[in-house]
Amino acid sequence: MSEQNTRNGNADVFKKAWRGFQGAKWTDEVNVREFIQNNYTQYDGTEDFLAAPTEATAKLWGRLQELQKEERKKGGVLECETEIVSSLTSYGPGYIDESLKELETIVGLQTDKPLKRAFMPYGGIKMAEEAAETYGYKVNEKFHKIFTEYHKTHNQAVFDAYTPEMKAARHCHIVTGLPDTYGRGRIVGDYRRVALYGIDFLIEEKKKDLDLCGNGAMYDEIIRQREEIAEQIRALKGMKEMAKIYGYDISGPATNAKEAIQWLYFGYLAAVKTQNGAAMSVGRISTFIDIYVNRDLEEGTLTESQAQELIDHMTMKFRMVKFARIPSYNQLFSGDPVWATLEVAGLGQDGRHMVTKTDFRFLHTLENMGPSPEPNLTVLYSSRLPENFKKYAAKISVDTSSIQYENDDVMRPVWGDDYSICCCVSATQTGKEMQFFGARANLAKCLLYAINGGKDEKYKTKDGKPMQAGPEYAPITSEYLDYDEVMHKYDLMMDWLAGIYVNILNLIQYMHDKYYYEAAEMALIDTDVRRTFATGIAGFSHVVDSLSAIKYAKVKVVRDENGMATSFVTEGDFPRYGNDDDRADDIAVWLLKTFLKKVKKYHTYRNSEPTTSILTITSNVVYGKATGALPDGRAAFTPFAPGATPSYGAEQNGLLASLNSVAKLPYEYALDGISNTETIAPGALGHSEDERKNNLVHVLDGYFDQGAHHLNVNVFGLDKLKDAMEHPEKPEYANFTIRVSGYAVKFIDLTREQQLDVIARTCHEAM
Amino acid sequence: MSEQNTRNGNADVFKKAWRGFQGAKWTDEVNVREFIQNNYTQYDGTEDFLAAPTEATAKLWGRLQELQKEERKKGGVLECETEIVSSLTSYGPGYIDESLKELETIVGLQTDKPLKRAFMPYGGIKMAEEAAETYGYKVNEKFHKIFTEYHKTHNQAVFDAYTPEMKAARHCHIVTGLPDTYGRGRIVGDYRRVALYGIDFLIEEKKKDLDLCGNGAMYDEIIRQREEIAEQIRALKGMKEMAKIYGYDISGPATNAKEAIQWLYFGYLAAVKTQNGAAMSVGRISTFIDIYVNRDLEEGTLTESQAQELIDHMTMKFRMVKFARIPSYNQLFSGDPVWATLEVAGLGQDGRHMVTKTDFRFLHTLENMGPSPEPNLTVLYSSRLPENFKKYAAKISVDTSSIQYENDDVMRPVWGDDYSICCCVSATQTGKEMQFFGARANLAKCLLYAINGGKDEKYKTKDGKPMQAGPEYAPITSEYLDYDEVMHKYDLMMDWLAGIYVNILNLIQYMHDKYYYEAAEMALIDTDVRRTFATGIAGFSHVVDSLSAIKYAKVKVVRDENGMATSFVTEGDFPRYGNDDDRADDIAVWLLKTFLKKVKKYHTYRNSEPTTSILTITSNVVYGKATGALPDGRAAFTPFAPGATPSYGAEQNGLLASLNSVAKLPYEYALDGISNTETIAPGALGHSEDERKNNLVHVLDGYFDQGAHHLNVNVFGLDKLKDAMEHPEKPEYANFTIRVSGYAVKFIDLTREQQLDVIARTCHEAM
Repeated sequence: MSEQNTRNGNADVFKKAWRGFQGAKWTDEVNVREFIQNNYTQYDGTEDFLAAPTEATAKLWGRLQELQKEERKKGGVLECETEIVSSLTSYGPGYIDESLKELETIVGLQTDKPLKRAFMPYGGIKMAEEAAETYGYKVNEKFHKIFTEYHKTHNQAVFDAYTPEMKAARHCHIVTGLPDTYGRGRIVGDYRRVALYGIDFLIEEKKKDLDLCGNGAMYDEIIRQREEIAEQIRALKGMKEMAKIYGYDISGPATNAKEAIQWLYFGYLAAVKTQNGAAMSVGRISTFIDIYVNRDLEEGTLTESQAQELIDHMTMKFRMVKFARIPSYNQLFSGDPVWATLEVAGLGQDGRHMVTKTDFRFLHTLENMGPSPEPNLTVLYSSRLPENFKKYAAKISVDTSSIQYENDDVMRPVWGDDYSICCCVSATQTGKEMQFFGARANLAKCLLYAINGGKDEKYKTKDGKPMQAGPEYAPITSEYLDYDEVMHKYDLMMDWLAGIYVNILNLIQYMHDKYYYEAAEMALIDTDVRRTFATGIAGFSHVVDSLSAIKYAKVKVVRDENGMATSFVTEGDFPRYGNDDDRADDIAVWLLKTFLKKVKKYHTYRNSEPTTSILTITSNVVYGKATGALPDGRAAFTPFAPGATPSYGAEQNGLLASLNSVAKLPYEYALDGISNTETIAPGALGHSEDERKNNLVHVLDGYFDQGAHHLNVNVFGLDKLKDAMEHPEKPEYANFTIRVSGYAVKFIDLTREQQLDVIARTCHEAM
Repeated sequence: MSEQNTRNGNADVFKKAWRGFQGAKWTDEVNVREFIQNNYTQYDGTEDFLAAPTEATAKLWGRLQELQKEERKKGGVLECETEIVSSLTSYGPGYIDESLKELETIVGLQTDKPLKRAFMPYGGIKMAEEAAETYGYKVNEKFHKIFTEYHKTHNQAVFDAYTPEMKAARHCHIVTGLPDTYGRGRIVGDYRRVALYGIDFLIEEKKKDLDLCGNGAMYDEIIRQREEIAEQIRALKGMKEMAKIYGYDISGPATNAKEAIQWLYFGYLAAVKTQNGAAMSVGRISTFIDIYVNRDLEEGTLTESQAQELIDHMTMKFRMVKFARIPSYNQLFSGDPVWATLEVAGLGQDGRHMVTKTDFRFLHTLENMGPSPEPNLTVLYSSRLPENFKKYAAKISVDTSSIQYENDDVMRPVWGDDYSICCCVSATQTGKEMQFFGARANLAKCLLYAINGGKDEKYKTKDGKPMQAGPEYAPITSEYLDYDEVMHKYDLMMDWLAGIYVNILNLIQYMHDKYYYEAAEMALIDTDVRRTFATGIAGFSHVVDSLSAIKYAKVKVVRDENGMATSFVTEGDFPRYGNDDDRADDIAVWLLKTFLKKVKKYHTYRNSEPTTSILTITSNVVYGKATGALPDGRAAFTPFAPGATPSYGAEQNGLLASLNSVAKLPYEYALDGISNTETIAPGALGHSEDERKNNLVHVLDGYFDQGAHHLNVNVFGLDKLKDAMEHPEKPEYANFTIRVSGYAVKFIDLTREQQLDVIARTCHEAM
């Protein structure tokens, strides 16, 4: 341990907290990755060591389930705050149940009561008011004055600066799901830092950064950054106050597993008290926590049962995170998700796998407390992970359909071995990176704009004419579509779309920084932060199949009195994406590459690095509803296939062919993620539990060894879905969880429309 | 009148309002200058036409004087708002006296009561609270929470971003008077636009600007500008609401003189309801108003007496503008000034003088209602102005010491013929320009830093050592100062000072835009605005004389135990600035040029144009108190000479020699202004009123024909000052006004320290 630790004039505190830990580099400056690599203990064994829920866990979880039931009864929201603006210190302590509070080993709620949703006006006062009103609550009127007259909100500022062209593009949903009515989220603070270093150390480091920020020449960039660091330091001080409210002093480092988990959770709690981003991920905490648990086990101060209890209780807290949302948000992101994404497994840069007992413990929460959408448990997968772990994860998938898999072998070379998933599937270097999240460009609608000369197929002007939302390029007027002409016009239109999309996002991100800066999260991220600019694609499979139809079959255009293409008659057969047919899959690769290259042509806010994704959450339904018929045969105003998943009904050659098609998409062109959701009938995987989990491991090994990025695995039959839709009251469906695009939801929490969409998706009855 | 005017679908409204007006260009788009040039009527006659105050004026002014007396009795502030945040519409209508309100021809107060000071927290909540507390008021506590937790203020943001080096420079007053604890002010909205066009026209123009702002590529600069325009439009809408509260609809243009004055005043009122900048100038409104008055006189709808009443009543309103200030602010800017600067006279680019009857009417307010510091009446002087006007202005100077003169012949080539004075003496193109005001660099202290190696001569570290506020350059260690060595080291130190000064200002201006943007003022300025970056110099004459002493005499350094130069023994005689001696005056020119060139080396916020000034308001006292002894013989910690005025006692050759020295300073290097204040004993000017006014005109002609920029003229003897200091209660001193650096104050409103400083200044007993 180096001299540096005495910086606080209290070397003993650090000596005690860091007793037995190896390595020096991480003691001099913030470097959690180095700490982990020096101290974690691999585990190759089976799940046999795992402990059942303790009595305390059972009681607390029982109480929480009652609360969740009440919440559902009340239409999805138990209670909304109307009098207090959420901040780090705006509430006294809160517990799951005041009478059971002695049982809670890990404490801290967003508000003063469980599942009560905080009032968070900074993103937009109207949204905050509407969210409360949707559930019958009326926010104190004084806040309307305060957050319109005295303090401007993010939403207001964005709309102040939008151009009419941008508003039209947004209105027509060619650019869609934009974070201008909700927080951008996707910033994962390195909450582990709170545990490893304590707040005072972190404040000192940030003060040094402030000293070193700029050479005195005050350019706008430097001024902004200096103010941000000052806000971060303020947030760190606020975190200490917040912890004090619960009786904890987190100025110093955690000294045991319980404290480490509690400190870490306080860091996360600071984030969810101050931001209501779409995705509020927890990050890669499992291996880190395991180091503390191991030390306590070795020191004899903790039993396995107690260790599991700590993990269960922390997980319970993650299951409770909620935000007040408006109806239009819920349509985009159904089932009340927060993307408290949390990773397990993965490999280190040195080749060692990073599976620890705590990785098992986190998966085990799905057994101890049943399936759950949150936290969004993600296995960082590699065929090189220990077999025992792979099988246990597969077992959990088969039993709960609650976890997802992402390919560590493609992500590690890009993001290193300490990345977190910051939303559903997007990787980010923990504590070193932040993302400017940007929702999606509707490439399917863009194809229609190419054909219709920039006119929208759905949205009309006041006088009933198709709205000219895109540039007034010459439309295609031929009866049959010519592939070369379509490709040329599509290229032009994509150019325009990429430009307006990037510029809309520049504006949103600027205003978010200005009016709703994530000080608490950024306080736990390096000052010299890497910024990515996360664009996204919607309607992917439909564009691919449509272009394939135009190329390989004959597509006749049906036009209305305005000359607008309203539907297409496709004569003859054509290859479709999702069948391992290069003719279609090559178009898919071309589309992804072309879009990203076009995005990269434009200036991005704060010189961030543009990336893209093919993932749509549940928003595939809303996006599809705004988009007309396509040459691939998809009917007008019906859902898209989600993410990079092949279109419903397109897959004719079984699960493996489908997986092969998706695996061809090059991850380096979609660093923000390529999400694929597959549903497999239990029978297709095997006839016994063992057969099923072994087969699933084989599927995963094969898929990911090809370089695919992500897979949601659902294991159930359509009958179960249909029964759950019709009989949501049956107890077995209370926690019935399914994976949708990049996250999990309780099936009964989806709208009927979305349930029907899920049911319509391909369920593989054969491999 | 062109087609464009029908844009509001209501050409008749404009036809009526603009009846008889000449010119077309100004009807198509906002162009007040063009309107004036096409429509004003020169006046070459004498003051004989002027009317005495009406009964209404006498009553209202009588009541206001009572209120001012009450105000003085209460320690300078009549009442402070504690419950309402000032905004355009936060108050109902307010009148000088509810029972006399029918007499007020021009209405509108900052708050609901006369002289009650508004609560304006955006610059800094602590300052706003302190200001109220200073006068025994307690701001409602809820605002503390709102303006710390919910909304950050300008002051907080600036201090968040300051570097330790900046804080040290500020602490030691080498950079001083910074607008980080008060609004930067100095932005003159073109309030005439409200009268000429009405608000709706202005909104439409701004909407067009918003449409044309940027090509869709969203760089930070463009996003910021788009949001600013949106805020401006919001402010214009707010102005309409504000006028409605007083029963006026200002959506259309003014149709007569009374409306024109009222509309214009509403524009100004919007500024002083939303900003509390140091200087809140009115601008060049006289010739403009005269056009409306003339038309009414010609149409027979107005008499001269009524015309004067309108001007008197508007002027009374300007005399009532007040802000709540903190004690440290009052030390900088004594006597409660607001710099409601208002210009008369000047020449047009076409050679015609622009003196109108209304210019006489404005000066006449000082007779009708007695002397007054506000509005800060400024004569844009040229020897080519009509003799009758020059004599009348001189007469007013001799009688009231309430007006200042600025050289139109040097300003017109730079700023055109429609500039306004935006503070005390600084010109700005009306409606086309804004200023980033930046207070002053203390060049006298900088000379001591050059000698002492960047160590401060007054301020100490905690352990009692001189604070190293400047760079750690090698100090001068010789017993006698060598001119070349001093010049070399002074050059280096000025380089550093210019850099840190500019960067401090960059930061302040950035935060002011971010947290306290002047939407109402900027709404009345062209969107494509020219931005100047107004730096300033303090201690000017002392540096000049000190360098002259080192060059032409022998200067021995007296050092203390720390090796710090604490005083200087100057052996032999040396030329001093203020005696028309080129040896000293050349140093003055060199100093000015060198400083500005150094300032220009640095990046300035928003690529604004750097300018500098030699003016210090009353802050010469505070700046001097922070600065040690100098080789020119000025004792440690005593006041500087103000602005560019020669040092007290340095002038040995009479008024004209002094004026000649100042006139050598090249205005093009000090575009922000060179202020000179001279006091002349009445006897020195002549033995009769005629002699005195004729002689003063000769002095002014001679001085300004040499290219000098500015002159404050005081005409009184020292005995009067001494008597006023000792007997402030005498009725003749109630409104006794004197010119100090760039503005006027009531002498009895100065602190005793400042009164003594004024008394110490050279009073010329001979020409």
